[in-house]
Amino acid sequence: MKVAVLGFGTVGFGVYEMLGKAKGLERGPVLVRPGKNDMPFKVTSIEKIVSDPSVGAVAEVMGGVEPAYSYAAAALSAGKHFVTSNKALVAARGPELDTIAREKGVAFLFSAACGGGVPFLHNLALARESDEIRSMGGILNGTTNYMLDAMQRLHLDYGDVLADAQRLGYAEADPTADVSGLDALRKIMLACAVAYGTLPTDGLLHEGIESVTAADVAHFQSRGYTCRLVAGGGRAEDGVYAYVEPVLLRDGAPECSVLQNYNMARYEGANAGPIVLMGQGAGRWPTASAVLRDLSGILRGEREMFPEGLRRGEVDNSLCRHSYYVRLPAELAGELPAASAELDGDTVRMITEPLPVSQMHFEAKRLRARGASVFFAAVRE
Amino acid sequence: MKVAVLGFGTVGFGVYEMLGKAKGLERGPVLVRPGKNDMPFKVTSIEKIVSDPSVGAVAEVMGGVEPAYSYAAAALSAGKHFVTSNKALVAARGPELDTIAREKGVAFLFSAACGGGVPFLHNLALARESDEIRSMGGILNGTTNYMLDAMQRLHLDYGDVLADAQRLGYAEADPTADVSGLDALRKIMLACAVAYGTLPTDGLLHEGIESVTAADVAHFQSRGYTCRLVAGGGRAEDGVYAYVEPVLLRDGAPECSVLQNYNMARYEGANAGPIVLMGQGAGRWPTASAVLRDLSGILRGEREMFPEGLRRGEVDNSLCRHSYYVRLPAELAGELPAASAELDGDTVRMITEPLPVSQMHFEAKRLRARGASVFFAAVRE
Repeated sequence: MKVAVLGFGTVGFGVYEMLGKAKGLERGPVLVRPGKNDMPFKVTSIEKIVSDPSVGAVAEVMGGVEPAYSYAAAALSAGKHFVTSNKALVAARGPELDTIAREKGVAFLFSAACGGGVPFLHNLALARESDEIRSMGGILNGTTNYMLDAMQRLHLDYGDVLADAQRLGYAEADPTADVSGLDALRKIMLACAVAYGTLPTDGLLHEGIESVTAADVAHFQSRGYTCRLVAGGGRAEDGVYAYVEPVLLRDGAPECSVLQNYNMARYEGANAGPIVLMGQGAGRWPTASAVLRDLSGILRGEREMFPEGLRRGEVDNSLCRHSYYVRLPAELAGELPAASAELDGDTVRMITEPLPVSQMHFEAKRLRARGASVFFAAVRE
Repeated sequence: MKVAVLGFGTVGFGVYEMLGKAKGLERGPVLVRPGKNDMPFKVTSIEKIVSDPSVGAVAEVMGGVEPAYSYAAAALSAGKHFVTSNKALVAARGPELDTIAREKGVAFLFSAACGGGVPFLHNLALARESDEIRSMGGILNGTTNYMLDAMQRLHLDYGDVLADAQRLGYAEADPTADVSGLDALRKIMLACAVAYGTLPTDGLLHEGIESVTAADVAHFQSRGYTCRLVAGGGRAEDGVYAYVEPVLLRDGAPECSVLQNYNMARYEGANAGPIVLMGQGAGRWPTASAVLRDLSGILRGEREMFPEGLRRGEVDNSLCRHSYYVRLPAELAGELPAASAELDGDTVRMITEPLPVSQMHFEAKRLRARGASVFFAAVRE
């Protein structure tokens, strides 16, 4: 099967290289921006690709919702299988693309959009057919894991590890989507859609690591905790729950052994029990390997990652409750129900009574709107 | 697709239950021993199943090479898809069954034969199509992991934890295959066959946990090590390597967080990097869930787990070298090249110079043939 590649950046180059060696796959044209078409295999027109009858599949690794969506819709409509690493595209327009793919009887797969090299969505899609997926989640963002791990091991402050991560290529020039938790949120949204057929609507509150300080990390460490940015998803009474927030884990918890830019994704099946998958969550070769696995899956008959009848749905994070570590200005300590608290200068570090996830995220937003510096993390004993 | 089940023991009951709820699958007849056919869905004749045109797939969970092989060959020859949890069957007769399945264009899948609920072989089969699998391995036997974990945490001796494991259903009445390492060896043999198309010939030396004592475990613990039974496999210069042996891991290594009867399987792809999968390695529901995932995979187009052209091949464990912890009678201390040694009564506990895996396994066999009590474990720093 000849595979056209849309985009020739970090991942696109990796996909093109791997296509040269994969069983049953061969290299097709590569779509690049005008001016970058300096090699015969590079083209600047999507029409050339979708009208080429020798192209069996299109792999999109450009990122962004447009023009990726238009290209994807054109490729699927022309009867080409479509594979992507683009989580923004799938979170925004997945249902429409799934509909076209089913109408045309071609594949729409996006393993690389969640977990990089970790085969999470593929296994989730297979498991949901015969098992009941009770919950899902894990460490789904390699950038923030690298940063939290470095802060804890090297005792560096947030700004320094961010600069290091950018220099090493683990963080982008604009790291907002990673450090705000939005990237991980999109991934758990996709997982909810794959597991339950419900793609959460956009606009969910999500907590990243932008507020964490070296003093916070030192405080956790002295008490035997490791901080990780964790996503959670599952069935709620009415629909699904899906959230991203920092979590304090007891040293020795499996997540604490997830170092550097690795990801750890998990699901719990009613029958299979907990299944955990680990690997590199980002980078050229791990991400390209996930794109290639999807392409090999097409040759083995795989077509759909979403279940039939995918729909948008509201999220209800009010039924998940955790105790939270909260660091906030001392004068605001009365705003949250504290189980214990200690004063540290003009700052209070408290452990709250168990609170619904939705409430904690909302309270932090409310206090920050009043100008307060607030960090919070769920405490898992 | 209607699925017949061969065997109605622990796993067979689980498969039958799960078939009642899985998408696209339905319950067919269940083959039981004569005298056990007390329900209308139970039959005692394999002919009834293979001649039934409504049966699309057969799931075998009886165990043992015969009559499982005859039944499997009959089912495949009749054009039924065939799924099994039976590692002894696949290790002994996998190539023959693969040939029949390919001739008939039906599926031959055996996820449940390696890793219980952990989707190891399925992902390995997919990854090898586009990536180069550099090595594989992990903790592939839940019984011995439960026992080693209990010995370390509860300071019990071997006989006591074995009795506990049997009482809790983690070990069989005859635990030989598990505690000798044979069960894990068969699993890594299957992984080699899936990854490289080379199924190792039988008769390999393998080391289990039968010789470990509470004193050994206390010794490891005092030095910051955890003992696990680990399988390793990969490409050798000429063919493959495949072995099972106890390994001492520094506390904090990912394998140390594998508790109770869990499995941790891993492979390293040249592009994907290390991929780790964890879950329950045995038990009714985890194993049944793996059988069901294979059946769902058939509906999604999956057919082969082995690569085309599978062949038997010799194993060469001479190129893998480790330092070993060896506990042996003091008078035999000169038989192995020690890097360091300490005398403990009439026993020596030594760390050897790096030795080929094949040599260490052979030396232990040789010393035991002379009546010596010997325990050894590779040391991973």
